[in-house]
Amino acid sequence: MSSQPEHPALLIPGPIEFDDAVLQSMSHYSESHVGAPFVKAFGETLSMLRQLFQTTNPTSQPFVISGSGTLGWDQVAANLSEPGDEVLVLHTGYFADSFADCFETYGAKATQLRAPIGDRPQLDEVEKALTEKEYKILTVTHVDTSTGVLSEIQALSELVHRVSPNTLVVVDGVCSVGSEEIRFDDWGLDVVLTASQKGIGVPAGLSILMASGRAIERFKARKTRPTSYFASWKNWLPIMQNYEAKKPSYFATPSPQLIHALHTSLTQILSKPLDERFAAHRAASQKIKKAVADLGLKQLAMKPENQANGMTAIYLPDGITPPEVLPNLLKKGVVFAGGLHKEIATKYIRFGHMGVSVVDPNRGDIEKAIDALKNGLGEVGYNP
Amino acid sequence: MSSQPEHPALLIPGPIEFDDAVLQSMSHYSESHVGAPFVKAFGETLSMLRQLFQTTNPTSQPFVISGSGTLGWDQVAANLSEPGDEVLVLHTGYFADSFADCFETYGAKATQLRAPIGDRPQLDEVEKALTEKEYKILTVTHVDTSTGVLSEIQALSELVHRVSPNTLVVVDGVCSVGSEEIRFDDWGLDVVLTASQKGIGVPAGLSILMASGRAIERFKARKTRPTSYFASWKNWLPIMQNYEAKKPSYFATPSPQLIHALHTSLTQILSKPLDERFAAHRAASQKIKKAVADLGLKQLAMKPENQANGMTAIYLPDGITPPEVLPNLLKKGVVFAGGLHKEIATKYIRFGHMGVSVVDPNRGDIEKAIDALKNGLGEVGYNP
Repeated sequence: MSSQPEHPALLIPGPIEFDDAVLQSMSHYSESHVGAPFVKAFGETLSMLRQLFQTTNPTSQPFVISGSGTLGWDQVAANLSEPGDEVLVLHTGYFADSFADCFETYGAKATQLRAPIGDRPQLDEVEKALTEKEYKILTVTHVDTSTGVLSEIQALSELVHRVSPNTLVVVDGVCSVGSEEIRFDDWGLDVVLTASQKGIGVPAGLSILMASGRAIERFKARKTRPTSYFASWKNWLPIMQNYEAKKPSYFATPSPQLIHALHTSLTQILSKPLDERFAAHRAASQKIKKAVADLGLKQLAMKPENQANGMTAIYLPDGITPPEVLPNLLKKGVVFAGGLHKEIATKYIRFGHMGVSVVDPNRGDIEKAIDALKNGLGEVGYNP
Repeated sequence: MSSQPEHPALLIPGPIEFDDAVLQSMSHYSESHVGAPFVKAFGETLSMLRQLFQTTNPTSQPFVISGSGTLGWDQVAANLSEPGDEVLVLHTGYFADSFADCFETYGAKATQLRAPIGDRPQLDEVEKALTEKEYKILTVTHVDTSTGVLSEIQALSELVHRVSPNTLVVVDGVCSVGSEEIRFDDWGLDVVLTASQKGIGVPAGLSILMASGRAIERFKARKTRPTSYFASWKNWLPIMQNYEAKKPSYFATPSPQLIHALHTSLTQILSKPLDERFAAHRAASQKIKKAVADLGLKQLAMKPENQANGMTAIYLPDGITPPEVLPNLLKKGVVFAGGLHKEIATKYIRFGHMGVSVVDPNRGDIEKAIDALKNGLGEVGYNP
């Protein structure tokens, strides 16, 4: 039995439902941010992130900073690009537009490579773009929360290393870390950035990022100083290294409660092989996608290989809008999200299936959601 | 009886001890950041901040963003200064150096007006500085956490308005909001920035800021775009206005748990007249400062009018260092902080007395700390 009061199951693509022990860690009594018990917990948390991202290279560097996932973009743009630098942003939805806007804020030139809604840029298009111009950075949204489109990180990274070996490979993993396979070292990634409230299963409030040794070297070789203070690795790098070495250190006060919750969640996640976790997400996703197809509904992500395993963006039947169906689902105890992609926001809904709702089948969240979707659509007159 | 497990009383100048109900709000079940219940809680929280800062001017604008107190500096530097702008930073300790560094990061020119350790720049010195150069912004640390020096905000703001009326008055209230009197409207302030984990009594993780209508107008009239993405009011202003109007809105995912804890704490704080709260902090501070004097010890802040009411920085007796005395205090169930001001860090300790430890006398935290200090120093050979 959960120790949480009864509440609708939150099945949006983040924040997700949280495990009891994780939520209890949020109410940890107050501790000094430079006292031995917290320094130990923070240090262990940073080390566990190496395992989650599957990196054993000692030059890789984890960062955990109070903020939202968006702060990860600032970390990349402020530390790894310099004014005038060319950046290639692969576009699979809303979040590429915003990441590009972030780069422009810091004076970099962002070129977007767009795909039709529900698709992703093809490898040959990426190859063509990389040969036409020297890009300092390529960014890819692993799963775009607005469309549920999954990018092919491994093949993409191999392509970049082959065609444009000086280009840093930056993955926006906000909606993928913890629910999609990511092999930081094996795939030759330079940055994977994420947030706490999705696949990692911790309340929002932390920007979590892994940088490669190559990215750190690139940062150290900058000609200009980073143009953000709060996001500056100049300020944070020694702090992260000290905490992981179990030495107290101060730049800005971290949040002991959020770090304890992250420690608890990572301990749970790493207590089983990561491959099992990813397989569980794939299996739940297949079940949901079959149910969606059986209902005669289409996904935004048009091909099986483009479809995320931690969320599903579903076109509503013609004439039915999110404000008609979402309150219906809420009455059945399930919260889905509306559309987010500007051009088609009123035509679809989003179903998030990450974390405890997937790996703890006793909760029954997924079955409840599928039933609610079926009956909820029936009640507004849709019968496939 | 507290529902928290037994633990040493955290009496550092932030994070402070937290009330049970505040900590319980940290483990609120997961909610959508754009769902009606959370939007209502966030909106109410923003409105309550107006009361805490004592502003009824509808053009004042509260901001609550995931991050640490440091992010407040970025908000000011990125949104209110433009490259080349002159800024006057009043120096009363460590935090002025850092705020100045933050301005330089964003291309502004920061001039520091320094006082000897334990003192603050005098009004006639500030007046002289303001007449010598046209400053866009003046910043003052209300209470410098490294020294416990209190600045005189009201008189300072009156001076700025008289001598240099176009200069924005920016108050770093990280270690003062909730424990020192602040009258935003009456004193003509343009920005007061703070964090959650000190006088407001909420776990770390939120940057909290109040801007005047004049500051917002100055922001809107900028010639260049803000050079931070995550700290940009261009991104946050519509979000804060929408949440306060109880309309869902999205730029980056807020932390429902931290916002709920802030809602709980502000509800508690505002349930009594603010003047009573400030008087309680002054009374506790007087008691502590008398005990320190009775022990034959000196404070860093050298004059009564310079001494903060929410913390006390205490010179140790000659020959005794923080690493000798702090573990002794911990054994007695009290956590104090070491020194932070670079030049004298090994010569003093810091005692934080804010929030529930002060306004809930049943806890007995203050008496316990005074006894621990007395006995702890005795055990290392100090007898006044």
